[in-house]
Amino acid sequence: MNKIEHLGIAVKDLDAAEKMYEDLLGVQSYKREEVPTEGVTTSFFKCGESKIELLVGTNPNSPISRYVEKRGEGLHHIAYAVDDIRSEIERLKEKGFVALNEEPKIGADNKLVAFLHPKSAGGVLVELCQDRSPE
Amino acid sequence: MNKIEHLGIAVKDLDAAEKMYEDLLGVQSYKREEVPTEGVTTSFFKCGESKIELLVGTNPNSPISRYVEKRGEGLHHIAYAVDDIRSEIERLKEKGFVALNEEPKIGADNKLVAFLHPKSAGGVLVELCQDRSPE
Repeated sequence: MNKIEHLGIAVKDLDAAEKMYEDLLGVQSYKREEVPTEGVTTSFFKCGESKIELLVGTNPNSPISRYVEKRGEGLHHIAYAVDDIRSEIERLKEKGFVALNEEPKIGADNKLVAFLHPKSAGGVLVELCQDRSPE
Repeated sequence: MNKIEHLGIAVKDLDAAEKMYEDLLGVQSYKREEVPTEGVTTSFFKCGESKIELLVGTNPNSPISRYVEKRGEGLHHIAYAVDDIRSEIERLKEKGFVALNEEPKIGADNKLVAFLHPKSAGGVLVELCQDRSPE
């Protein structure tokens, strides 16, 4: 893993959470992006080499809405930057991690992403992120 | 906030968690450190400019043991690096955050640390960390 690419934080009210993170981090959100396939709207803040990604569900059945309903607002996942996501998925499966995505999918912020099941990763939902090459 | 200094992850079994993070991150833990005032033993991994800090309670009444008992293993806090922790505490209190420590205390890894109450920070336990100057 090269670095912490971002931390995903589940929120109920994106406007209120953006205001709070502007106060906390001392910077403005640099973009909002909807990811219809995940049922979320995201908002990104830079923090050093990493990002904070706020996540709000766009419908009551989205995974984020259900997470917030069950556990409340808070830390949702850690995303690590990798160079070659397919080889990392294979490497981690051999180590006993359970991949939620055998094939990477297109996530927010122009990334290829894949998740590891939290039950195989000490209760932490782990995301792998690879920059998508401009084609 | 200058960067994500570390992510605190609560675990039940430090030996097993260290092995898992060695597999996940592809690096070894670079130190273990006990923090008796917090009732925890920590283990640190480097990841880019940030660190992963595994935390295990050293007794059943430590905050980490109680956290794991209640919520299970997983993400516990985000620590941000700051230059001047006392002025950051004052700045954040004025913005409405609730400081759990009016006066910074000495934490792991030679830092001055202070926490913000998760109820004032969107369900996230936030730690501020300042390097202690060699005296």
